[in-house]
Amino acid sequence: MLTCKKEIEVSFHEVDSLTIVWHGHYIKYFEMGREAFGKEFGLSYMQVYKQGFLLPIVKINCDYKRPLQYEDTLIVETTWQNTPAAKVIFHYTIRTKGSDIINATGSSEQVFLDENRELHLTVPPFYAAWKVAHGVKD
Amino acid sequence: MLTCKKEIEVSFHEVDSLTIVWHGHYIKYFEMGREAFGKEFGLSYMQVYKQGFLLPIVKINCDYKRPLQYEDTLIVETTWQNTPAAKVIFHYTIRTKGSDIINATGSSEQVFLDENRELHLTVPPFYAAWKVAHGVKD
Amino acid sequence: MLTCKKEIEVSFHEVDSLTIVWHGHYIKYFEMGREAFGKEFGLSYMQVYKQGFLLPIVKINCDYKRPLQYEDTLIVETTWQNTPAAKVIFHYTIRTKGSDIINATGSSEQVFLDENRELHLTVPPFYAAWKVAHGVKD
Amino acid sequence: MLTCKKEIEVSFHEVDSLTIVWHGHYIKYFEMGREAFGKEFGLSYMQVYKQGFLLPIVKINCDYKRPLQYEDTLIVETTWQNTPAAKVIFHYTIRTKGSDIINATGSSEQVFLDENRELHLTVPPFYAAWKVAHGVKD
Repeated sequence: MLTCKKEIEVSFHEVDSLTIVWHGHYIKYFEMGREAFGKEFGLSYMQVYKQGFLLPIVKINCDYKRPLQYEDTLIVETTWQNTPAAKVIFHYTIRTKGSDIINATGSSEQVFLDENRELHLTVPPFYAAWKVAHGVKD
Repeated sequence: MLTCKKEIEVSFHEVDSLTIVWHGHYIKYFEMGREAFGKEFGLSYMQVYKQGFLLPIVKINCDYKRPLQYEDTLIVETTWQNTPAAKVIFHYTIRTKGSDIINATGSSEQVFLDENRELHLTVPPFYAAWKVAHGVKD
Repeated sequence: MLTCKKEIEVSFHEVDSLTIVWHGHYIKYFEMGREAFGKEFGLSYMQVYKQGFLLPIVKINCDYKRPLQYEDTLIVETTWQNTPAAKVIFHYTIRTKGSDIINATGSSEQVFLDENRELHLTVPPFYAAWKVAHGVKD
Repeated sequence: MLTCKKEIEVSFHEVDSLTIVWHGHYIKYFEMGREAFGKEFGLSYMQVYKQGFLLPIVKINCDYKRPLQYEDTLIVETTWQNTPAAKVIFHYTIRTKGSDIINATGSSEQVFLDENRELHLTVPPFYAAWKVAHGVKD
């Protein structure tokens, strides 16, 4: 399973008037998890861009289980999900460091746009090769 | 149908390096839609708070259809959905002003926490009364 | 005096755990004031861009006088300041709508970058013409 | 000299349509530097809060020297400045990791509010003690 953990410290500006992290910031935490995954597994935005593609988000969701609070450190675990479609799908689990508490889970879908920003309907060869290189049989 | 429209101008700081609005900002647009709904229909955070309840978000999702760009004005349409559960559910549609383009759709779920921040499992009387006052038969 | 007023409603996500607007958001309010000024006086980012220039911020400051709170509506007043230098300078005053309370004051400086992103050391002709068109004697 | 370094990776959502970090995010970087300082030197928001005080920002400024870009890692250096006034003053220098490039410098001022959110005009005893404990002669 292709997965990656990224540690993030909650900062003051992320905490709302209920003294919990404002829900919208979790979307940012997902992005930071995705970026850490890309760096670790050779699928960063810049690497994809150099192949001639953009990867805009087309779907996102988040289920909030238990709020994060000030001075918490969170760990976002980003797991890649295989799909035959021309999409990149990630699942996220956010936990509080040093505990088993799950604060949130979620997922995202991205599509490939080519250099003319047209939707690319088939899996780009570089991405097919990336799958093979990472032991994904499909 | 209880629904409300809120107009928002895209600002420079919301636009990412792909020259489109960064996807996370749509969560903020949903919130601004929800706030406009609350103001129009007497269900603002402060009004709920004065009844002794908080309404944290427990679920959010967004489907991105067509990117918003700099100098766009968007209209977020927020529609309340009835449910017998002790939840508040909204659906959102974001359109570009002056066109029929749908940029995104989404929804959110909120639960009631009481003054001790305990989950309130039944519909609070003030919310039941609010439904009645707005012609909702349930 | 070239000046412009822009009304902004404080939104929930802008309020921090002290129940006041987090100080960093004022920088965003200044930007929204600047954008409203640009739209009103023909000096928007896109209009400048079409002339072949970018206008990055090189200096910003803010003095916080009295905090903004949830459900406040603020008015940011953006005033253009003339200078013989190849810079664009704005001053900002943020007030609470419906009162004389000044919440914050500040200023920003921007420089001109040309199409190669090199610093342009002299006032671009289009900007000199803009000044003349707006009755500025210099 | 009381100073602290904090490393931050630029994330995609921080980069604007000019492909540089949006200027407002530097205010957040300053905060993250201040929080790292507080943690290292025993002057965190929570520690100050437990002494009965809040430390709102009353003044901030930033000079932008060279833009940060995507995939940069920045180091914010936060340096405490002594003052006989009942204020907390920090200076910030943001550098790109692995180079001598200074991207920005800035400073902030904070005042003490007591439990009634009244301005505290004299240096609180706990802060005077903190200075002594850190070898500051004043």
